[in-house]
Amino acid sequence: MGTELLTIGTELLLGQIVDTNANWMAQRLAEAGVDVLYKSTVGDNWGRIAAAIRLAMSRADVVLMTGGLGPTEDDLTREVLAAVLGRPLRLDPQVLAAIERRFAQRRVAMPENNRKQAMVPDGAEVLPNPRGTAPGLWVRHGECALVCMPGVPSEMRPMLLDQVIPRIRANFGIQSRIVSRVLKTCGISESTLDQRIGDYFRAMRNPTIGVLAHVGEIHVRLTCKGDDLGEIVAMLDELEGKIRARLGHLIFGRDEEKLEAVVGRLLRERKATLAVAESCTGGLVASRLTDIAGSSDYFERGVVAYSVEAKQGLLSVSPALIGQQGVVSLDVARAMAAGVRRMSGASLGLATTGIAGPSGGTPETPVGLVCVALAWDGGDGAREFRLLGDREQVKYRGAQMALEMLRRHLLGIPMDEV
Amino acid sequence: MGTELLTIGTELLLGQIVDTNANWMAQRLAEAGVDVLYKSTVGDNWGRIAAAIRLAMSRADVVLMTGGLGPTEDDLTREVLAAVLGRPLRLDPQVLAAIERRFAQRRVAMPENNRKQAMVPDGAEVLPNPRGTAPGLWVRHGECALVCMPGVPSEMRPMLLDQVIPRIRANFGIQSRIVSRVLKTCGISESTLDQRIGDYFRAMRNPTIGVLAHVGEIHVRLTCKGDDLGEIVAMLDELEGKIRARLGHLIFGRDEEKLEAVVGRLLRERKATLAVAESCTGGLVASRLTDIAGSSDYFERGVVAYSVEAKQGLLSVSPALIGQQGVVSLDVARAMAAGVRRMSGASLGLATTGIAGPSGGTPETPVGLVCVALAWDGGDGAREFRLLGDREQVKYRGAQMALEMLRRHLLGIPMDEV
Repeated sequence: MGTELLTIGTELLLGQIVDTNANWMAQRLAEAGVDVLYKSTVGDNWGRIAAAIRLAMSRADVVLMTGGLGPTEDDLTREVLAAVLGRPLRLDPQVLAAIERRFAQRRVAMPENNRKQAMVPDGAEVLPNPRGTAPGLWVRHGECALVCMPGVPSEMRPMLLDQVIPRIRANFGIQSRIVSRVLKTCGISESTLDQRIGDYFRAMRNPTIGVLAHVGEIHVRLTCKGDDLGEIVAMLDELEGKIRARLGHLIFGRDEEKLEAVVGRLLRERKATLAVAESCTGGLVASRLTDIAGSSDYFERGVVAYSVEAKQGLLSVSPALIGQQGVVSLDVARAMAAGVRRMSGASLGLATTGIAGPSGGTPETPVGLVCVALAWDGGDGAREFRLLGDREQVKYRGAQMALEMLRRHLLGIPMDEV
Repeated sequence: MGTELLTIGTELLLGQIVDTNANWMAQRLAEAGVDVLYKSTVGDNWGRIAAAIRLAMSRADVVLMTGGLGPTEDDLTREVLAAVLGRPLRLDPQVLAAIERRFAQRRVAMPENNRKQAMVPDGAEVLPNPRGTAPGLWVRHGECALVCMPGVPSEMRPMLLDQVIPRIRANFGIQSRIVSRVLKTCGISESTLDQRIGDYFRAMRNPTIGVLAHVGEIHVRLTCKGDDLGEIVAMLDELEGKIRARLGHLIFGRDEEKLEAVVGRLLRERKATLAVAESCTGGLVASRLTDIAGSSDYFERGVVAYSVEAKQGLLSVSPALIGQQGVVSLDVARAMAAGVRRMSGASLGLATTGIAGPSGGTPETPVGLVCVALAWDGGDGAREFRLLGDREQVKYRGAQMALEMLRRHLLGIPMDEV
């Protein structure tokens, strides 16, 4: 069986709204074992919507429409669908009552326009929409299933997951599903990954393995297809175990887990506290750490020491050291880390200094040179990185390397494993 | 005339890649007066690509294809197009030479696969691609123009702008174009905008006016259609002038201009220097300011005083004040702003304190309560905001309000105009 996604709205053809729905739907359908064969978009035009529905019915078993269910003049999906199927529209009193209740809750009179949202093509099932006024529709017509959903993502998403996908799987006898899992690494190269696990990703057929580079991270994606969720999870667990046996703690997290959240969890587990001194990353390390709820438990303070005076005054970096080594140097990074640790009383001090660009580079200290240092009770460590990209990317990659240095220290992994 | 966008690639149907191309192309085409009637996506499947091309030719004058021009087995666009049009593919020696040169520059032998990228359907014009190996194609076939472009955005975008759009406009005699301009505001409500300029956006037909809310900003978009670029710009200038006469300095910037860049420019013009003390925004104000190249000229330092000790030690906020007023209070914000200004020697001190959530709120200091203060030579100002959203949104909106308070101070606009 095959599915066509049909997104409806002139604003999509003008590029005024990015069609995030089609992509999100395609992912969820693929995971649910539903093949998507076509994606199409048409504007709010009766003739073109009708032609697109007829075409989709001729080449797909399921036609999934989004958009055009609103109360205004240019919302045509419901009316065109009824006309194409040759089914009359009837007012559904239950749907009307639900819409009226929504308005009553907000103490607003229901505009007359919204009545049309309660019109249902003969024989269609109503898919309730607790998050908005437009309900969805499910119509079997011959061999085909036609589905209408609202275009608002927060209304469409739960409707697809909870009501539409289960109906498609049941109606078309779909057993299989696809589950993906992402293992995230930071600070190692693609060629290291290839050396370590390349034999797996060339040999594996199910699960398959893909490697994808993001700014400052490389992700390993495992994708498994099967009929039984328990079996799929077991196969993913087995492969993840093998990959972890090769990569060990170089994997910092899984799926949606962010590096700053992982670092935060480790700090909390070890009852450590952290102070950060930033130059080239300009507050980004602190901002990312404090994006995590509860970070006040371990994040003591941050200092953005942009000027030389701030490095001296806030961090006690000696002017002589800056004069000898230059402000972008391993020794200045060490002094910043030690300084912020000492002045804050935190158990760890983390520091960055570098050239974010686009100007300010020299042959000795080029744009993208970033020094990161960590100070702890009785010792310290520092590393130099040459990072690529524009100013914001250098800041991001520098922050990433600082967080990764901290993570590796907390786990006892050497920083030179790259 | 009408255009169909046809994006080709199985990864797009699986949702593994977000189709940013179609949206970007739709915008640029709309601006160039080219109407897009349909957007479609098919996978890497010979029969379905052929059917999609035939369908597009039956309903559109221009068929703009992206993707499927690579060197691998599943890249089929070139071959399918030639078959649908009944034109033989011929090896183009100039294209082959260009591909070979690219490999030679990288000191890599050209794989045999890449030869197929030099195959050109009979009668097609080659669109050179200096950024990659796959050239584009332009074929007139009867009334229709068929265009193939690579799917890689950095290769497709200049090809569309420099080679494809001018050809479409010339071939189909398109005179008109659409130009948009965005005026950005911060810290005022949609209802204020409606009171001030609602008569314009209800009355205007060309240019039209649209109002769009983003996190922490409201944008006013002017869109003008016409045949002559000079006339369009004059019409936009006139309307922008009228809107500015009503909104004045409440408009902080235009088009791509960011609030942190505007604030940076004002600080530089006034030879002012800035130090920032952040609690709830956690370094985000500093990070945004230092995203701007050259910010070291005016940004002196930032302090993320997350702990009470940091507020006392780095900013000299008195424990008694915190005890009396609570850490989230206008007086503590004022003390933080004054403290960071005094300790840094900067001419301005900016501070934030608040509850970013999701926990930590109380009836008196609920999640989303943020106090912002600014200290200057001989005075200070402070304001309290109740901001909506999750932790990251509260941080962002709080940073936005801090930057806007600074901008208004530098321009002498009262902060209570909301």
